[in-house]
Amino acid sequence: MRIVVVGASGTIGKAVVGALADQHDIIQVGKQHGDHQVDITRSDSILQLFERIGKVDAIVSAAGRLHFGPLAEMNAEQFKIGLHDKLLGQVDLALIGQHYLNDGGSITLTSGIVSEEPIRYGANASAVNAAIEGFVRGAAVELPRGLRINAVSPNVLQESWPVYGPYFAGFEAVPASRVALAYQRSVEGVQTGRVYRVW
Amino acid sequence: MRIVVVGASGTIGKAVVGALADQHDIIQVGKQHGDHQVDITRSDSILQLFERIGKVDAIVSAAGRLHFGPLAEMNAEQFKIGLHDKLLGQVDLALIGQHYLNDGGSITLTSGIVSEEPIRYGANASAVNAAIEGFVRGAAVELPRGLRINAVSPNVLQESWPVYGPYFAGFEAVPASRVALAYQRSVEGVQTGRVYRVW
Ligand SMILES: NC(=O)c1ccc[n+]([C@@H]2O[C@H](COP(=O)([O-])OP(=O)(O)OC[C@H]3O[C@@H](n4cnc5c(N)ncnc54)[C@H](OP(=O)(O)O)[C@@H]3O)[C@@H](O)[C@H]2O)c1
Ligand SMILES: NC(=O)c1ccc[n+]([C@@H]2O[C@H](COP(=O)([O-])OP(=O)(O)OC[C@H]3O[C@@H](n4cnc5c(N)ncnc54)[C@H](OP(=O)(O)O)[C@@H]3O)[C@@H](O)[C@H]2O)c1
Repeated sequence: MRIVVVGASGTIGKAVVGALADQHDIIQVGKQHGDHQVDITRSDSILQLFERIGKVDAIVSAAGRLHFGPLAEMNAEQFKIGLHDKLLGQVDLALIGQHYLNDGGSITLTSGIVSEEPIRYGANASAVNAAIEGFVRGAAVELPRGLRINAVSPNVLQESWPVYGPYFAGFEAVPASRVALAYQRSVEGVQTGRVYRVW
Repeated sequence: MRIVVVGASGTIGKAVVGALADQHDIIQVGKQHGDHQVDITRSDSILQLFERIGKVDAIVSAAGRLHFGPLAEMNAEQFKIGLHDKLLGQVDLALIGQHYLNDGGSITLTSGIVSEEPIRYGANASAVNAAIEGFVRGAAVELPRGLRINAVSPNVLQESWPVYGPYFAGFEAVPASRVALAYQRSVEGVQTGRVYRVW
């Protein structure tokens, strides 16, 4: 398959590329790194990416920023960070990308455990991750031509523990290699509208 | 209790006011109707509302617009309608409103069945409703002073069937009076971080 991985240089993206590269033709995309660049927060940038790379069999996204901070101090502008970046960025990648998928192709987005297991300072993350999962359920029922869409909801990664560990006391961190399997399952499998939890 | 109901003139809001009015002091708020006006899509308008009405024991929101339309034609601008109106509008009401709640007070937001049960043209609704439920889970764990936050997820209402019925074939429409009970349960009960499904 011809697979575009957005966020390919990231902690998760690198593992996904590692898991898929020997069986598939991978196009690595990042904001700065990779074979091609895209800013998923801008529709014109996403459109240009697909016009450059053409049709693909799978779109994988492991990118998107959230706002973390105390609820008592949170305001609408901060909340918009997650809405416009991780949520709308990935949604827009799917909305535009659907038209560049070959029949039977798939879209795999990234949510996260905080959707269902809240943490301190995580109200924006819980909302955004849940929204991605809701979008996947909503979009799956409308996609034509055997197209599929799923989300992967990773626990905190072992590789990210030095940074995120303090917010995830008692969570059982998972290796990126295990998270990558869920993306492979989504890309090479047959299900749609699913959230693959890696917890 | 002193309870502010945003969307009090609406199909759901009217029923909520009906269920709570004989036991509580209700402040009815709408965009155009009611004792006071607010535009939940503007932080300054929400702040002005609370500065005018002062402290309350409960905030109920039954307001917020979504985008309905075919996934194949959906774009980021359309998707933003639900993000900025029903989602961020209600979230911002909670973010600002938390500072105007008496100890032990509550916030009750509105999501909807499409969060979990997708319908044609409903990708924005599924994402936004799921996000509201995620936000409620995320916010509940941080609220101090015994403050609580929940969401009510109504099925399509019998009263709204003439308008929404065509999109909900086979769904078992519920009367507004039954939906109102869930808001009462959230306001007068003890739970937090809950989604009360009325299906
Ligand atoms: N790490 C974890 O423990 C964990 C757990 C659960 C969920 N997640 C979620 O998984 C996603 C990826 O996390 P990660 O830790 O792998 O991130 P990361 O290491 O920070 O990598 C981010 C990747 O996304 C790309 N990127 C950033 N902004 C972009 C934009 N606007 N447009 C296109 N690409 C962009 C970066 O490209 P460049 O390198 O070219 O800038 C990079 O490849 C995030 O949404 C995160 O919330 C992570
Ligand atoms: N009806 C259903 O079957 C159903 C089912 C599930 C979920 N829901 C959800 O429940 C919520 C309410 O639905 P509904 O059918 O009761 O709506 P509705 O009858 O259209 O009433 C909307 C109410 O919200 C107020 N409002 C609109 N925009 C506002 C804004 N920007 N700021 C503040 N107030 C605003 C209106 O005030 P004015 O009258 O003053 O303009 C009105 O009181 C919606 O989010 C909807 O998605 C509805």
